[in-house]
Amino acid sequence: MTMTESNPATRNGVDTATLFATLDAVKAAPQAAKFQFRARNEWISGTHNRSTVDGFFGVGEERSHERTWVFDADHPAVLVGHDNGPTPVEFVLHALAACLTAGLANIAAARGVRLTEVRSTVTGDIDLNGILGLDPAVRNGYEQIAVRFTVKGEAPAEKLRQIVEQSRARSAVYDIITNQVPVTIDVETA
Amino acid sequence: MTMTESNPATRNGVDTATLFATLDAVKAAPQAAKFQFRARNEWISGTHNRSTVDGFFGVGEERSHERTWVFDADHPAVLVGHDNGPTPVEFVLHALAACLTAGLANIAAARGVRLTEVRSTVTGDIDLNGILGLDPAVRNGYEQIAVRFTVKGEAPAEKLRQIVEQSRARSAVYDIITNQVPVTIDVETA
Repeated sequence: MTMTESNPATRNGVDTATLFATLDAVKAAPQAAKFQFRARNEWISGTHNRSTVDGFFGVGEERSHERTWVFDADHPAVLVGHDNGPTPVEFVLHALAACLTAGLANIAAARGVRLTEVRSTVTGDIDLNGILGLDPAVRNGYEQIAVRFTVKGEAPAEKLRQIVEQSRARSAVYDIITNQVPVTIDVETA
Repeated sequence: MTMTESNPATRNGVDTATLFATLDAVKAAPQAAKFQFRARNEWISGTHNRSTVDGFFGVGEERSHERTWVFDADHPAVLVGHDNGPTPVEFVLHALAACLTAGLANIAAARGVRLTEVRSTVTGDIDLNGILGLDPAVRNGYEQIAVRFTVKGEAPAEKLRQIVEQSRARSAVYDIITNQVPVTIDVETA
């Protein structure tokens, strides 16, 4: 984890000097790594609603993204919506692809591997008999998710595969999807 | 589940006639409810990458959303990124809020309850000592997620709470997050 002179400062668009300095800073002050992320959502009509993402907490203080992002979600007409945005479950697939890909770039940079191309397709199979309440044996969520990566870079295939594997092993979204996260729901009605 | 004359055709922006007809159609042909959703992701630089959401499979055939959506994800500067988009884990919070809210509107409509306002804030606590590989006792993903709803409508508070509870009980994203989904990852390197 020590940066050496042979490492260029930036690889794969990752500032490796800052990456290693961040690791060292968190090692010295583990509390800095406690983050809270947030989304605020507002119902619009039917299955159409909109989330706003801006502030978060991390490294001991309240922070803001450089922009405020707004995302609409909806159901397509075939699911009795108006297709004003992707379905919520499609955002989950995007999150998984994005998390694995970001990790891949960081890990490759840390290992001195220059990547030239990373693409992926994520598919999720879901049987809507679950959420429609028509078959108690069918779960509500995805029955399975498949990620197919194409990874090219200046390293042997085996090394590229190991980088993907390490990204999987350290992916926040992969953990959220493949393991259990406790979720509480509170409701104010006035 | 039978539409009655006392139900107006649309409530909360939900076409209840079509909603009930869809339920009846799936009851008659359960295979129609087998869907596959997808996202395609392309690495840009560092932790910045971009997903495209357009086609999906459902009701027996290949389908397209009315638009193609593109979403960027990145890490903020404090996490060695360039803040070109929300973090992947923030998209997960949006997905959860969106799924619960869409369900709420559908269920309220089915139960004859007119909603006037639905807002929510979703927070996710994460200790990045996990993904940084600095503490093997810390998980990679969220340690906990909290959803706080404000729901107003033409029904007693208890009835509104029951609608939220039914939405939770039938939410695809809630299931994905709170339970385990099998994920496979394949890698092509050439």
